[in-house]
Amino acid sequence: MSRWEPNARGRLEQAALELYGERGFEQTTVADIAQRAGLTERTFFRHYADKREVLFGGAASLQEALVSTLAAAPAAAAPIDAVAAALGTAADLFGERHAFARRRHRVIVANADLRERELIKLADLSAALADGLRARGVADPAASLAAEAGVAVFKVAFERWIEESGERDVAEVIRESLAELKVVMAGG
Amino acid sequence: MSRWEPNARGRLEQAALELYGERGFEQTTVADIAQRAGLTERTFFRHYADKREVLFGGAASLQEALVSTLAAAPAAAAPIDAVAAALGTAADLFGERHAFARRRHRVIVANADLRERELIKLADLSAALADGLRARGVADPAASLAAEAGVAVFKVAFERWIEESGERDVAEVIRESLAELKVVMAGG
Repeated sequence: MSRWEPNARGRLEQAALELYGERGFEQTTVADIAQRAGLTERTFFRHYADKREVLFGGAASLQEALVSTLAAAPAAAAPIDAVAAALGTAADLFGERHAFARRRHRVIVANADLRERELIKLADLSAALADGLRARGVADPAASLAAEAGVAVFKVAFERWIEESGERDVAEVIRESLAELKVVMAGG
Repeated sequence: MSRWEPNARGRLEQAALELYGERGFEQTTVADIAQRAGLTERTFFRHYADKREVLFGGAASLQEALVSTLAAAPAAAAPIDAVAAALGTAADLFGERHAFARRRHRVIVANADLRERELIKLADLSAALADGLRARGVADPAASLAAEAGVAVFKVAFERWIEESGERDVAEVIRESLAELKVVMAGG
């Protein structure tokens, strides 16, 4: 096996997802994942801290994309609209991977450890969005509330998109859910 | 030691909180907690599944209180107002325990495992509120969105209340945060 492993991260993620689906998360070891991917355990740990993390390799780039889009929103944009613009960028990261996203989501909801890991990633995302809003001059608690509401919309919209056929853009489902939350908050 | 242990749950919770604050969560064992509480490990496991759970003994009664208040809200109440009424009941459960809630919160935010456990309790709370709204005839995604927004308000308000002097009622901070989120969602 050569020391340079093309797309090692993607292969490990794919192998983990297959095995968690087939045998369950608890019944799968890092050694199993590495073997299925045709890589070594050592390579696994070069890329991921543990067997939960392998399903969240995209979290950092998602957060980066959201935060930089938030920073680039027009200065006059209301906080929730700046957050909405940021959420729209999520579309670019998931748009082409509906089947993968659905399989991944089903594996996660079936296991409490994976659900917890997903929730802490979403909480980190919310904290990063709140920081981004504060950097735009938004005071607290509006910054925290807009960030939390944004992540709530993201979560609900993403789950709806997962259950759909995949023909719609995730960005469209996010816009729709945001509009719906505005109605809900207006007491409608 | 008698077999009937008065307030075993409360004593174990108090002992765990002290030890996590003094030594850290990782450095504390169930045996340490039981010893500090003057109880046995066996008694610990009769009350709590693990050393994370000991800080979340109130989660079930909080959820029960929220869900039953939600069910009792006037039929004509808008979903977000029914959720707001439910959140108000949280005041009764935390109102007298500001110093305790603050200590507990600081221990939780200092440890990723405890943060994850807290996030899954909040996610369960959101799912229970969404179910309660569906039982009131609220359609999806409005039910999920109102529940998520409610939990977001609860989270932000609770953290604000923790950082305050404790003179205000937590219910008042929740009302204020809900009003603020309504402004945020209106694009203000």
